[in-house]
Amino acid sequence: MKAVRWHGAKDIRIEDVPEPPPLRPGELKLEILWTGICGSDLHEYNAGPIFIPVETPHPLSGLKAPVILGHEFSGKVVEVGEGVTKFKVGDRVAADACEVDWTCPACREGRYNRCDQLGFNGLHRNGSLTKYMNVWEYMCYKLPDEVSDEAGALVEAISCAVHAVRRGRILEGETVAVLGAGPIGLSCLQAARAAGARQVFVTELAAARKEFAKNLGATAVLDPTEVDVKKEIYDMTDGIGPDVTIEAIGTPATGKQAVELVKKGGTAVIMGIFEEPGPFHFNEVVFFEKQIVGSIAYAGEYPATIALLADGRIQADPMITGRITLDEIVEKGFDELNTNKERNIKIIVKSE
Amino acid sequence: MKAVRWHGAKDIRIEDVPEPPPLRPGELKLEILWTGICGSDLHEYNAGPIFIPVETPHPLSGLKAPVILGHEFSGKVVEVGEGVTKFKVGDRVAADACEVDWTCPACREGRYNRCDQLGFNGLHRNGSLTKYMNVWEYMCYKLPDEVSDEAGALVEAISCAVHAVRRGRILEGETVAVLGAGPIGLSCLQAARAAGARQVFVTELAAARKEFAKNLGATAVLDPTEVDVKKEIYDMTDGIGPDVTIEAIGTPATGKQAVELVKKGGTAVIMGIFEEPGPFHFNEVVFFEKQIVGSIAYAGEYPATIALLADGRIQADPMITGRITLDEIVEKGFDELNTNKERNIKIIVKSE
Repeated sequence: MKAVRWHGAKDIRIEDVPEPPPLRPGELKLEILWTGICGSDLHEYNAGPIFIPVETPHPLSGLKAPVILGHEFSGKVVEVGEGVTKFKVGDRVAADACEVDWTCPACREGRYNRCDQLGFNGLHRNGSLTKYMNVWEYMCYKLPDEVSDEAGALVEAISCAVHAVRRGRILEGETVAVLGAGPIGLSCLQAARAAGARQVFVTELAAARKEFAKNLGATAVLDPTEVDVKKEIYDMTDGIGPDVTIEAIGTPATGKQAVELVKKGGTAVIMGIFEEPGPFHFNEVVFFEKQIVGSIAYAGEYPATIALLADGRIQADPMITGRITLDEIVEKGFDELNTNKERNIKIIVKSE
Repeated sequence: MKAVRWHGAKDIRIEDVPEPPPLRPGELKLEILWTGICGSDLHEYNAGPIFIPVETPHPLSGLKAPVILGHEFSGKVVEVGEGVTKFKVGDRVAADACEVDWTCPACREGRYNRCDQLGFNGLHRNGSLTKYMNVWEYMCYKLPDEVSDEAGALVEAISCAVHAVRRGRILEGETVAVLGAGPIGLSCLQAARAAGARQVFVTELAAARKEFAKNLGATAVLDPTEVDVKKEIYDMTDGIGPDVTIEAIGTPATGKQAVELVKKGGTAVIMGIFEEPGPFHFNEVVFFEKQIVGSIAYAGEYPATIALLADGRIQADPMITGRITLDEIVEKGFDELNTNKERNIKIIVKSE
């Protein structure tokens, strides 16, 4: 079968590989429908290996590079392993990206996103940018008719946003500021509205992304190069400031800004991935009794995300800005995202 | 009456001042018993003005320097104002340090410690280092017989620790690390034990303070100049790390350490006051889904603190390392704390 395999930075090959091995008890064989390209895939393409094991096989999967990329996907069940009870051939599913390691204290708390080993599809184990893939039954969630094959490929990414919004413990009627209007920021905007926020402000520099944020219901979209973001948001919140801020960019300046922007006693959720440290004054936290809350991936949010997609409170379609084939992955996928990052939100890839 | 007044940095004078004005409705007149010297008093002495208004009178009190210092105190009611119902002459009380400003959004949420104006006894309004002081009835809490006059003077400081431990949401059976064994750190140690922590580790450099921590029930006292604190604590917590860390020092290095030391998904409570920013990497928060929680002063913890002192779960006496008179405040108070900080925990001053 055709597969997109990572061999090294800037070395991604379309190759013919064997089909997955026979199913183990508790596994499903999926025919992949669509796969979204994630920022972490792009990082592996540009500057990897970051997560992909190269020297030593991964302790859970036994795999090292080359590895089939792809962890944001929808698939159709084509075979069920021994003992599988919840799925049958023909079911459409989205799958958690993480294998659970029952020797890991975090996994044992149900927090598999904090796992010591992180057995992630498409990074630590073979992923979905191919035709067939084996996954554990416990990783899978059924897609209802209301969620399309394409939208199903966004469940993984949107679950990161739902998780972050939950980590922020947004209460109905509160005010939220989301820093960054990429795929995750736009999903946070929608998830915050679903959580009952009365106002969701978005900060963004790129014109195209500002439009996406407006169209997806932002109360106001603010450009830090044009206005004093804190002043504007405080003016629109009776001088109190947002109850929750969500940082979805990952620069020391915006990390600091998320903390400075939130109201006294408020919560700054940090979900960006940072490339370097920056100066930070802890008095910003102490004097105003703020909280900083880290958020990574998700842990159990798929059912909520799928339900929010099914009833339309979160919309995947407006965030899909490109549909390509496996063969086009480098030129129309990674290179397009590198060159025209601002006009793209989510590019999805059709398996074949 | 004799009063200790701040005129400027290194300019504290023992002066004769008029008794407080006649009581307003809702006020009590207290005869002060004992007053603790707080780190913030020392900061005002060494490097003030920090909080004390010098140019413009404070909006709540109408006061500017010179101001009578003192906000950690016990007192006896000698007169009650019109409308006072909860106290009678002869009652012994401890008093919240903060006036409430009903125009402040934080005060209106009951979070008077986050007040925009911070009308603090002994900084923004006249304090307790004198014979008599007027306070609002709503600021006062009765001291039961089990809490001595001297221990009553520590209710304010210990409430900061009880508040910080509550901000950390310590659950029964969890593990805690307290950074710093000054008066606040030692109070946090005791409050964490009262909260049901099964292990409370303390880090400290000074030999005298290490002894205080051991005597007050620390599971282990670790000196960062002698051992690898993180390794030691992880070894003693099955490799998982402390559920909660509490930073009670206020240096960029220990702020960062509190975050790095806490377990995945754990909470670092920051209550130190910081003099400068330092480098910080937000991935420490993101990758391990940690929380950083600021804590300042207290908001409603006096009844709990008084009850914990009354039943002995928190002990004030072992933390009292000096008893002096108003006349001795500079030499045996501030200068002693500056010169021999390590051997002193709390010096208290007897009013006369």
